[in-house]
Amino acid sequence: MTLLPRTGIGVDVHRWATDDRPLWLAGVHWPDQGGLDGHSDGDVVSHAICDALFSAAGIGDLGQHFGVDRPEFAGAHGVEFLTEAARLVRAAGFEIGNVAVQLIANRPKLGPRRDEVQRVLGDALGAPVSVAATTTDGVGITGRGEAAAAIATALVWSMT
Amino acid sequence: MTLLPRTGIGVDVHRWATDDRPLWLAGVHWPDQGGLDGHSDGDVVSHAICDALFSAAGIGDLGQHFGVDRPEFAGAHGVEFLTEAARLVRAAGFEIGNVAVQLIANRPKLGPRRDEVQRVLGDALGAPVSVAATTTDGVGITGRGEAAAAIATALVWSMT
Amino acid sequence: MTLLPRTGIGVDVHRWATDDRPLWLAGVHWPDQGGLDGHSDGDVVSHAICDALFSAAGIGDLGQHFGVDRPEFAGAHGVEFLTEAARLVRAAGFEIGNVAVQLIANRPKLGPRRDEVQRVLGDALGAPVSVAATTTDGVGITGRGEAAAAIATALVWSMT
Repeated sequence: MTLLPRTGIGVDVHRWATDDRPLWLAGVHWPDQGGLDGHSDGDVVSHAICDALFSAAGIGDLGQHFGVDRPEFAGAHGVEFLTEAARLVRAAGFEIGNVAVQLIANRPKLGPRRDEVQRVLGDALGAPVSVAATTTDGVGITGRGEAAAAIATALVWSMT
Repeated sequence: MTLLPRTGIGVDVHRWATDDRPLWLAGVHWPDQGGLDGHSDGDVVSHAICDALFSAAGIGDLGQHFGVDRPEFAGAHGVEFLTEAARLVRAAGFEIGNVAVQLIANRPKLGPRRDEVQRVLGDALGAPVSVAATTTDGVGITGRGEAAAAIATALVWSMT
Repeated sequence: MTLLPRTGIGVDVHRWATDDRPLWLAGVHWPDQGGLDGHSDGDVVSHAICDALFSAAGIGDLGQHFGVDRPEFAGAHGVEFLTEAARLVRAAGFEIGNVAVQLIANRPKLGPRRDEVQRVLGDALGAPVSVAATTTDGVGITGRGEAAAAIATALVWSMT
């Protein structure tokens, strides 16, 4: 068996919702915060991680796996996506080494809940997840508060 | 010989053209789709991959290798850039492990041609290439349909 | 001892300043160039590298390490951040494999100083750093000249 690392990348963007839906982001609920638009809960952190994993494993993307032909994922939360993504990656013959993701948004404040979020996401994947956050200095779609973005990279191991 | 993996990253953005030039993207022609601006064919997917490979190998960037002093690449298509990038990376003493790239654009629909595109790009590099696609929820330069973007990561192996 | 590679990622954005402050970017001073806004010198290249390293090592982010509770980093230049980031990564039990970073901005022209910049950043980290540059075809916050952005990836080795 040759163990070869492979790298993957994923970006996701969702607009901040104008109604009063709840915010689910990075796999957890954020009380007293307006939510993100989207067919699902708009959890850009979880979606970027899924795409990083899929691309590292070479098994398509979020749209392919969680699109309209899988209605059981309509309205699903990030942890459900991540759990299924990890299952698909392992079914394709890969193990997950690590995932790193950065939230690019004006809110919420990630630092105080970083440990909790990393534990929730890491439990869903069965692998270590690093979660960071930054802002864009008041400019662009995230800086003006129009949208939240996330960017993730993943390293997976070929087990074949 | 020590085999060490190295990581690289590359982003590229081109505006959608306002004239009727053809669309070449991810190494292939897309009939009935307006094209991208640029000195070359504006193939952001191929360009992002080149920059990810160059940075992983530590041998500069797209501007350095395919700039004005190499007029044979004026108007070149993505596959020609990728073939030459792979040659340069190997000449510098590296082997290509894998490449993952994500198209960030409102069009074209990648899914139906994913296998073909991955085969064309993978043949040009002599290494596996994962191609994914996403949108930005209607906001920003890609969401408003002003431009197409791509982001790529590459893993290369030091052969020295 | 098991040597396992881990991947990380980081993005940073700062606005171009409207006053006449100097430009410090990628660890060096750029004469005759207007600078970037920010509590520090706004060196997006150095900041993106720090976040890529922190996320690869799973030890938080720039805001956590260089925030208001560490006033000795107020006004610090990129090399000081990078030196301390490398120290923190090694203290957490990792070695730095390589770093790749891409400047996304209309200026300055990186090519002529690429070797110098790579040497300065690499000396600060004690590891190879690839520095590339691109533009966004005149659109978006970087293309319109509102801001400079950088994106970095890092590969670190677990030494435990």
